[in-house]
Amino acid sequence: MKVGGRDLRAVWWTDEGVRFIDQRLLPHALDFALARGVEEVARAIATMAVRGAPAIGVLAAYGLALAARRGEPLDASYARLLGTRPTAVNLRAGLDAVRRAGPDPAAMLAAARAWDEAEVRAGAAIGEHGLALFRRGTRVLTHCNAGWLAVQDWGTALAPVYRAARAGLEPFVWVSEARPRLQGARLTAWELAQEGVAYAVIADAASAHLLQRGRVDLVLTGADRIAANGDAANKIGTYGKALAAHAHAVPFYVAAPLSTIDASLPDGGEIPIEERAPEEVLRVEGTGPDGSRIELLLAPEGARAWNPAFDVTPHDLIAGIVTEVGIVPATPAGVAEALERGRASAAR
Amino acid sequence: MKVGGRDLRAVWWTDEGVRFIDQRLLPHALDFALARGVEEVARAIATMAVRGAPAIGVLAAYGLALAARRGEPLDASYARLLGTRPTAVNLRAGLDAVRRAGPDPAAMLAAARAWDEAEVRAGAAIGEHGLALFRRGTRVLTHCNAGWLAVQDWGTALAPVYRAARAGLEPFVWVSEARPRLQGARLTAWELAQEGVAYAVIADAASAHLLQRGRVDLVLTGADRIAANGDAANKIGTYGKALAAHAHAVPFYVAAPLSTIDASLPDGGEIPIEERAPEEVLRVEGTGPDGSRIELLLAPEGARAWNPAFDVTPHDLIAGIVTEVGIVPATPAGVAEALERGRASAAR
Repeated sequence: MKVGGRDLRAVWWTDEGVRFIDQRLLPHALDFALARGVEEVARAIATMAVRGAPAIGVLAAYGLALAARRGEPLDASYARLLGTRPTAVNLRAGLDAVRRAGPDPAAMLAAARAWDEAEVRAGAAIGEHGLALFRRGTRVLTHCNAGWLAVQDWGTALAPVYRAARAGLEPFVWVSEARPRLQGARLTAWELAQEGVAYAVIADAASAHLLQRGRVDLVLTGADRIAANGDAANKIGTYGKALAAHAHAVPFYVAAPLSTIDASLPDGGEIPIEERAPEEVLRVEGTGPDGSRIELLLAPEGARAWNPAFDVTPHDLIAGIVTEVGIVPATPAGVAEALERGRASAAR
Repeated sequence: MKVGGRDLRAVWWTDEGVRFIDQRLLPHALDFALARGVEEVARAIATMAVRGAPAIGVLAAYGLALAARRGEPLDASYARLLGTRPTAVNLRAGLDAVRRAGPDPAAMLAAARAWDEAEVRAGAAIGEHGLALFRRGTRVLTHCNAGWLAVQDWGTALAPVYRAARAGLEPFVWVSEARPRLQGARLTAWELAQEGVAYAVIADAASAHLLQRGRVDLVLTGADRIAANGDAANKIGTYGKALAAHAHAVPFYVAAPLSTIDASLPDGGEIPIEERAPEEVLRVEGTGPDGSRIELLLAPEGARAWNPAFDVTPHDLIAGIVTEVGIVPATPAGVAEALERGRASAAR
């Protein structure tokens, strides 16, 4: 997507290493960081300088290609990158695609580039398919950031929003802030402002009230891992939105590329849920009045916190999964059909 | 309740005017502020230096007594104080109790003191009745702050927690932070730490996940207004917790004094929901590394936000209402019974 007239992606390969937008500094600064080796790539993922399931899959893929080019040990590099974050399965899928092309460094880089381009195409296709969910003025509630920063280009949940906006349908987006790291308030609001899409940020806790008051037509989020039965892990807070959408008969859709599906897991109960540092809940980072980076303590000194980063929405609360091969039911048959269409499409 | 060995209330009368703990500065500073006239009292309520439905009722009651003593016009003072916040009905109830005793200033002060003491007794009695909901090690999820800072002493939702802790039942409290103003992380965590009750702060969005994973035995919140049928308005985010509790068959109780009941409203649909400034969502205040007060921008410059401060939980999601006259069903009959018991008790 364009920022200030310039085409940008979340992550891109250069001769010096892998470049990326440091998303921790957004929306106040647009900074292009550089990872020169595997450890720097791993840190960019673990610290969430780059986040979003498809984007970290692409970054990890380039990271393994970087390891090959620099002669870093491939097995250890693979393990280091895979261990950065447990929930998003795209990380493993991207790494596997590059490892399979090894050990030739050029072949591995070509595989990483192909993985990148496939995710970009998937985002664009998700936008096309998801457009069917929009009418004029549709009010969509989303959570966290599932836009181009999370998916290289277009996005998952935001891709249909951008398509709808470009089609003149004037969508409106309720942006759930996504505590503790505020990817909604920081990243989704910034993306939407860049594209001129109307939105309002809300506290996560306002979602059920919005749905109760009839102010939402559609709930649309991304996913970090989808099990074979359609259960979907996504940013903490998604499950509560799905329950509230169900209570008020508002359709809840998940948008994700096929790389997010983990067919090895029969259901979402086995998806590992990352627990991050309590400090993410107890402190907040931001930009002070003078533009400096500041961290504020929100709770008493010594307070304890628990910080699960994801939750699992059972498939029976999901109206459908928007993938690059179409919208499928969140059922074992629907997930299998999506994977089959993906294989058929790849074989063509 | 005691802080550092000293008995404190949220609000208290002095010869200079009404003193109160400025809750905006907690947990980092315990500051006793003074309101010398009606306008200062009104500002303390509107800016949430004092918040919590029972506490603002008491503060408003003292504010009207202050108006009488200073010879400020009573009707205008009543209107100014009543207009500070729309949702909590205790505000009107406290004001009415003092106005009825007028116009003699001494009688009005006596009425304000009586109102204060009645709320304190109500909190203590809620603790006694609510104790029945606790067993050894009960894990309770609460939201916002419904402790002694909100109710002068003891609290509403936290009163049974304190009782259970003093009875040696070792309760554990999940403290939902309550964005945007973080009364959970700031005030409830501070209160619980003072009392030595075990707790962990969570992002509001983690509540449904906690319930899904079986880590909560009881959900217990306060209320700002309860309609005649048992529908209850409380801090934004309460309704989502009630839906999630219902989905996982965990009992959801509301704790509130009878002063929170508005029998003039047949149901919660007519409870006015305060909308506060978008800046509360877009910015966060806290204490910087050097101890100074700092405000951080969390979203892009110029971002829009919507900030409803309360939501309404339908009575069919509420297992019961814990009042000073016992636990009653959240039904028209239950609410009527509670009011009748209150009248009978007052007549004795």
